[in-house]
Amino acid sequence: MNSNQLKQLLSNMTIEEKIGQMVQLAGEFYKEEDSENTGPMHEMNLSAGKMATIGSVLGISGAQTLIAIQKEHLAKSRLGIPLLFMADVIHGYRTIFPISLGMACAWDPNLIEESAAIAAKEAAVSGLHVTFAPMVDLVRDARWGRVMESTGEDPYLNQLYARAFVKGYQGKNLATDKFSIAACIKHFAGYGAPVAGREYNTVELSERTLRDMYLPAYQAGIDEGSKLVMTAFNSLDGVPATANKRLMRDILRKEFGFEGVLISDWAAVGEMIPHGIAENLKEAGKLAIEAGVDIEMMTGAYLNYLNELIDEGEIAETLIDEAVWRVLTLKNDLGLFEDPYRGANSAEEKAIVFSQEHREKARGMAEESMVLLKNKEQILPLSIHQKVALIVPEGQAKDVLGAWSWKGQQNESVSLYEGLLQHIPKESIVLKTIADAQKEIKADWLADLADVDIIVAVVGESSYMSGEGASRSNIKLPSEQIQLIKKLRTLDKPIVATLFNGRPLDLTDIIQDVDSILEAWFPGTEAGSAVANLLYGKKNPSGKLTMSFPRAVGQVPLYYNQDNTGRPLTALNQEDKFLSRYLDVDNSPLFPFGYGLSYTYFKYSPMEVTLTRSPKSQEDEVRIEVMITNSGKLAGTEVVQLYIRDKVGKVVRPIKELKRFKKVSLEPSESTIVAFNLNKLDFEYTHQDLSVSVESGEFDLMIGPNSEELEINTVYLTFKKSE
Amino acid sequence: MNSNQLKQLLSNMTIEEKIGQMVQLAGEFYKEEDSENTGPMHEMNLSAGKMATIGSVLGISGAQTLIAIQKEHLAKSRLGIPLLFMADVIHGYRTIFPISLGMACAWDPNLIEESAAIAAKEAAVSGLHVTFAPMVDLVRDARWGRVMESTGEDPYLNQLYARAFVKGYQGKNLATDKFSIAACIKHFAGYGAPVAGREYNTVELSERTLRDMYLPAYQAGIDEGSKLVMTAFNSLDGVPATANKRLMRDILRKEFGFEGVLISDWAAVGEMIPHGIAENLKEAGKLAIEAGVDIEMMTGAYLNYLNELIDEGEIAETLIDEAVWRVLTLKNDLGLFEDPYRGANSAEEKAIVFSQEHREKARGMAEESMVLLKNKEQILPLSIHQKVALIVPEGQAKDVLGAWSWKGQQNESVSLYEGLLQHIPKESIVLKTIADAQKEIKADWLADLADVDIIVAVVGESSYMSGEGASRSNIKLPSEQIQLIKKLRTLDKPIVATLFNGRPLDLTDIIQDVDSILEAWFPGTEAGSAVANLLYGKKNPSGKLTMSFPRAVGQVPLYYNQDNTGRPLTALNQEDKFLSRYLDVDNSPLFPFGYGLSYTYFKYSPMEVTLTRSPKSQEDEVRIEVMITNSGKLAGTEVVQLYIRDKVGKVVRPIKELKRFKKVSLEPSESTIVAFNLNKLDFEYTHQDLSVSVESGEFDLMIGPNSEELEINTVYLTFKKSE
Repeated sequence: MNSNQLKQLLSNMTIEEKIGQMVQLAGEFYKEEDSENTGPMHEMNLSAGKMATIGSVLGISGAQTLIAIQKEHLAKSRLGIPLLFMADVIHGYRTIFPISLGMACAWDPNLIEESAAIAAKEAAVSGLHVTFAPMVDLVRDARWGRVMESTGEDPYLNQLYARAFVKGYQGKNLATDKFSIAACIKHFAGYGAPVAGREYNTVELSERTLRDMYLPAYQAGIDEGSKLVMTAFNSLDGVPATANKRLMRDILRKEFGFEGVLISDWAAVGEMIPHGIAENLKEAGKLAIEAGVDIEMMTGAYLNYLNELIDEGEIAETLIDEAVWRVLTLKNDLGLFEDPYRGANSAEEKAIVFSQEHREKARGMAEESMVLLKNKEQILPLSIHQKVALIVPEGQAKDVLGAWSWKGQQNESVSLYEGLLQHIPKESIVLKTIADAQKEIKADWLADLADVDIIVAVVGESSYMSGEGASRSNIKLPSEQIQLIKKLRTLDKPIVATLFNGRPLDLTDIIQDVDSILEAWFPGTEAGSAVANLLYGKKNPSGKLTMSFPRAVGQVPLYYNQDNTGRPLTALNQEDKFLSRYLDVDNSPLFPFGYGLSYTYFKYSPMEVTLTRSPKSQEDEVRIEVMITNSGKLAGTEVVQLYIRDKVGKVVRPIKELKRFKKVSLEPSESTIVAFNLNKLDFEYTHQDLSVSVESGEFDLMIGPNSEELEINTVYLTFKKSE
Repeated sequence: MNSNQLKQLLSNMTIEEKIGQMVQLAGEFYKEEDSENTGPMHEMNLSAGKMATIGSVLGISGAQTLIAIQKEHLAKSRLGIPLLFMADVIHGYRTIFPISLGMACAWDPNLIEESAAIAAKEAAVSGLHVTFAPMVDLVRDARWGRVMESTGEDPYLNQLYARAFVKGYQGKNLATDKFSIAACIKHFAGYGAPVAGREYNTVELSERTLRDMYLPAYQAGIDEGSKLVMTAFNSLDGVPATANKRLMRDILRKEFGFEGVLISDWAAVGEMIPHGIAENLKEAGKLAIEAGVDIEMMTGAYLNYLNELIDEGEIAETLIDEAVWRVLTLKNDLGLFEDPYRGANSAEEKAIVFSQEHREKARGMAEESMVLLKNKEQILPLSIHQKVALIVPEGQAKDVLGAWSWKGQQNESVSLYEGLLQHIPKESIVLKTIADAQKEIKADWLADLADVDIIVAVVGESSYMSGEGASRSNIKLPSEQIQLIKKLRTLDKPIVATLFNGRPLDLTDIIQDVDSILEAWFPGTEAGSAVANLLYGKKNPSGKLTMSFPRAVGQVPLYYNQDNTGRPLTALNQEDKFLSRYLDVDNSPLFPFGYGLSYTYFKYSPMEVTLTRSPKSQEDEVRIEVMITNSGKLAGTEVVQLYIRDKVGKVVRPIKELKRFKKVSLEPSESTIVAFNLNKLDFEYTHQDLSVSVESGEFDLMIGPNSEELEINTVYLTFKKSE
């Protein structure tokens, strides 16, 4: 449809039809057993007539099902407006990729883009139009369960990843590319910073920090053209995001220029009542529409009260028109008016979903996402001649997908046992499960392991323990696992801990007891194959953390890009008490942001820094070069990282900020030069008055393999004053 | 001096003399061995000439010493301007009272006032003029060591206490009351909210939260007439408080109307350099004077660079005049121009400091400050016929004063052993120290306890473990103490844990293993006498917590007056995962704000609520009455607490806010009616646009013995719209 036709359509709609477009219902409303008299429709006071006006559906998929629902809907819709089908396609559709926090550790936006494109393809042929992804919330608190869905604690990386996800999902053209789906940047804004790491809790941020740290990733996704944005559950500055006019109207719409659809999170409009800013659903609906929420998910405030609010003059009908216009535009952008069934295709669904090709991609991505945290005396890689004891938590052999893997099937995924069998025969593996946690590990159980050469212990979390609604006050391994490791240690055999988990864990209890640690996250469908390939050195680990691993939960929130204090703890003043420190633990994380080992070694040459004055702007630009050499015996991949520090700012500046990185693969003895260019934009920051600029002065430029092992070079840079 | 004379004095001063008044030096500068060539003077580039211009000295006391220093100074000062003597008199001068967090648990501002008045008297006769107290920082994070110096997590209580401290220190008239000293409200602002509970760390608050929760106590102390305010070490909204113009000029000076002396915390001006907002001390000095800091403590920025900054036109001399005027006014308010030796008096010092009268007051205050947390089967009070095992940590018998007890002497204080001897003979006590923590507790050690009737175990923290610079990531008891308790439990004798500590601790590990817990804090000089009086029931415990005790450090920051979320955990939805909760611990604290037991019981009648419409304002006022009955067998004291909740606000409102309380003492079977009146001002709050008002609507009124056991009564209140 062209713009005029779309306007015509809007003008033909009744107010009820308009409101219907602003409502999203769960798939259960479209099941046969539902009716006006019982079930969800009844609960939401939905007549069959109103059902015909509804604009979108969430959480249901399958080409055949969605084609049938669409067909039936079009038959009832007076103006033939197709339904939008949305769902949570987070880290894969049915081919499950590593959780986002794992994918992020690949430091490769292209890989993220590819994963999103594959997920989109599987989802699109299954009839979906929109995914509620990517989540681009910056996270600093490992207690929060949903860190698994984030790409980590760095605003620069998060921006790149936000763009990559959106590109991957949306492809080049939503209307013509039937394998793409629309993306939805979430959760706007600040959801990743709940007080005390407790899910859905209040968020407490100065606006300056919000702007410098949290907003950039959302903005990047929007700049990349994300068709939707989702509101956050939390309150920000005391106002729930879904009702936060300043956030939604002033920042999202005006400042960021977002013209797409703003959708509430599940029931977030109704939750204004427990939040205590609306007395009832009607008031909640009013606040949401005033804040500019176009689609309400699931609580019926719009459905049941918008009409009344207009009649009573409480809200202007133009607010409705605006919202509906955006929804119709999205449908049009997806080409739904031309083809309401769009990509949905049962034959393609069969051929494409969970295809061998996609599984191989998933394996590759899983390999890239894993982080080698420790490898004492090069215990890894394993030799195929070693006899291995494989120990996995009870019932968790296939629990490798992680939360938010809706269509993923555990039984289709590869366990580590199956993965090992790709390298060694059955006879070389002694498989054990971690015995009932309540019971003592029996001596004879250990005796079975007498003749193995090495122990591979799978530890970490079940997928239930991270994801939405899975905050933990204790981020250690489950205590029975710690006990197990201590017991295994008595065997005096090398132990490789393979971690499956969705958050940075406090590994202090076991760090001395194990020889190697491979952080596998939840690797997805091809978990076992990927882990085994790394364990046997078929692939050399190259992942680097994007979220700090604390030494104790009492250190959180802990993040590398923290502000300096007036009394910093340094290498030179370790004995002083009156510093910004703890009495009982170092300030540093156990494993820092950017950290990860390889089976080979990389040597960094001293960096060369060249300053040039831009002839145009008369401002300094910086070029930094460093030569990286693979000094080990295996081919490997390194992520070279560039950080800066503004030594004197108008506000306190972070002690380190990632500004560039490059992932390079090198054969043994091979060298390459990595070069980075920085200009004024890379140094700007938000001032106390919320203006964005930077002053001339000294800056540290820092290059290295992670955020702690860095060569520092200080330069003076001249910038012109902002107007 | 009258105002004109003071102005005359100012106009006679050279610029060097003015700058001198803005400098505070530590006492060591006034020791004989110091000279221009070595020591502190040398380090700060101080000539003898400049020394004669200095305005104030900190951290030195004693009538004789200070009279001598003053005399010598006046002999050198061209205009005869006396020195100001300041020091950290925090919870007592030499007679040490409980730490502030303990004093707060008495819920008695009069007691705080009395403690401050006694401290002032001891300090004044010892020659001091100003104390760096009270600290009125609101605290929510038990990791922070300095919570011991705060009165807790409630803005209402903190306001009352701020006023009481100021009243107590300053008396009715500083000029005529020689037993008073000037107070200094600190630390402005937000120092109590460091990220991750790490001392001196960045503070991250929305301005709304700052205003509703953190600022009220500072403002109350200022309204009460505090002569000084101290800047905080932390940055707020990215700008270190000491350089924060918006905070100091706009809020402190303009909005709060503070006309007294603003002093930097120790070296806080120089710390702008590590903070990264000043390149050097000169720049730091410029930022501080621009922000309105009148006196710089210890880093020499003012001393060495203010002159230069004026000469270069970087700052106006009027800024200096303003600051010096405030310093001179303070000296004049103290009557120093008339009597530069003011209260300093060796004879009085001898008679008054650490007098028997003061010690008795200290004992009474300690008794009021302690909180009975658990008392299973009324194990307490003890009988004098029981044989007691008293177990104390190695070398800590006299470590009862806590941090910030400068002039307090451990050897002058009463140990718990000495306290018990006031009630029972030596033969009834088996005294043990906790053996070397590294060693196992030996069986024969336990055998010694075979014939005791009850075990009193002193556990908690050494005074080193809390206070400034004493953040802990782990807030449990030291592990050897936990092990000790578990070992003692095997004796199957009742155990009374007596806690000496400076912060809420995670007591989860021992809560089931001990029968009674008495939270004694650091009780000060009369520790042992006070604890023993409570243990033997000579005094009935009545303290109530003013800071929540978490179940685990992973819950912090944890505070009763939190905002509600959209998905609150309630009694009815405990099985749901998708709530604001943790998987592994309840949301509630182990012991809530306001909690504390007695040896007797109190019955609350249902509350009666009366609404009246004010004839003048036409707005609702509320009167709440409740009858309290002592239903037990001992006389006792109860703190009746009134909380409110605004059920629907323009921003999310706290689920509970303390608004009134009353401490009542009742004989067995005695009853009393407690009545509270509330008006519009009690319901107002800060809105998103920072305006302060309240809307008509429903409010919960809640009365009970602590913040969790509350009767709720919901009323509709009508308020007029604010203009």
